Amino acid sequence: MSARATSRPGGRSARVQQSVHQAVRELEAEVGRDALTVPLIAARAGVTPSTVYRRWGDLRELLSDVAVERLRPDGPPADHGSLRADLAAWAVQFAEEMDSTAGRTYVRDALLGDPEQGNAVRCSDYAAEQLTAIGVRAAGRGEAVPGVEALLDVVVAPLMYRILFRPSELSEAYTDRLVAAALGLEAKS
Amino acid sequence: MSARATSRPGGRSARVQQSVHQAVRELEAEVGRDALTVPLIAARAGVTPSTVYRRWGDLRELLSDVAVERLRPDGPPADHGSLRADLAAWAVQFAEEMDSTAGRTYVRDALLGDPEQGNAVRCSDYAAEQLTAIGVRAAGRGEAVPGVEALLDVVVAPLMYRILFRPSELSEAYTDRLVAAALGLEAKS
Repeated sequence: MSARATSRPGGRSARVQQSVHQAVRELEAEVGRDALTVPLIAARAGVTPSTVYRRWGDLRELLSDVAVERLRPDGPPADHGSLRADLAAWAVQFAEEMDSTAGRTYVRDALLGDPEQGNAVRCSDYAAEQLTAIGVRAAGRGEAVPGVEALLDVVVAPLMYRILFRPSELSEAYTDRLVAAALGLEAKS
Repeated sequence: MSARATSRPGGRSARVQQSVHQAVRELEAEVGRDALTVPLIAARAGVTPSTVYRRWGDLRELLSDVAVERLRPDGPPADHGSLRADLAAWAVQFAEEMDSTAGRTYVRDALLGDPEQGNAVRCSDYAAEQLTAIGVRAAGRGEAVPGVEALLDVVVAPLMYRILFRPSELSEAYTDRLVAAALGLEAKS
């Protein structure tokens, strides 16, 4: 994502972003992503094509920006009563979302229209924020909690690596092994 | 990479591939990658543009194919006398190559022009082959060796995740920690 799209001021600029993002989502559902063009999106959003080019650079950067918004978690991770249960449930859900057809498309879009890596970093920050929330809750219960960077290395990185480079069955047994490794415990199976 | 480019018969087809790949590498050095076009590449390679389109689909798929060739290891991993030393040296070299400007471009190219993920899988297979060679050598010395999939999860995945999603200092201390974790040992620092 370019510097253009990282600024999110309110007012007109925020409205433009919202209407352009919505136009992308609507048109993608209606005509398919291969038929998307900047003029088509601009017309639906009620802005000029030059507004889109000025703000996002090109179609790929716009799609990257929209993809990252779609990868934003809906809310805080669910509370299952223990660090291990919270991490296990989060890892299963993360793997399911990222390994879905839509998730894979969003991850690719986020990476590919992103010459300065801002959108990729946002994806990673979403995961880090969720893991931090799980860790803060666990610490509140008095549990020992690994650092977020370690959780990213041991739990998140293998999932993303396999989704992008090495198609694999991301089963619950697999995500449980990753979580157990992160916590220095035996896997359940 | 499409199915078109996965077949590598000898004879004319192999010569076409070689001359087209060479044309891409030469022109990229001469005019820069943003100026590359299929007609330009075809003219340099002495083939028709339709030959390129038929075989590679489009410029992005061709660049993906060329990128993967460039990511192919030059030879077997160096022998440093022990599993840990071999893995540590390999991880440092892998991180340096992938985290270089050229390496990042090749990884992105490989992922980007690769709707069927064949080229991404080839990248992962290169790493798996190198790790297998290190493991076979260590087993020959009588050392206990983790499975290749575990090494990919614990050593390779965090490096690729950080290169793509989370710009980080991939120091030798960091790669050593990953290798130590893979072997169930304490890190040196």
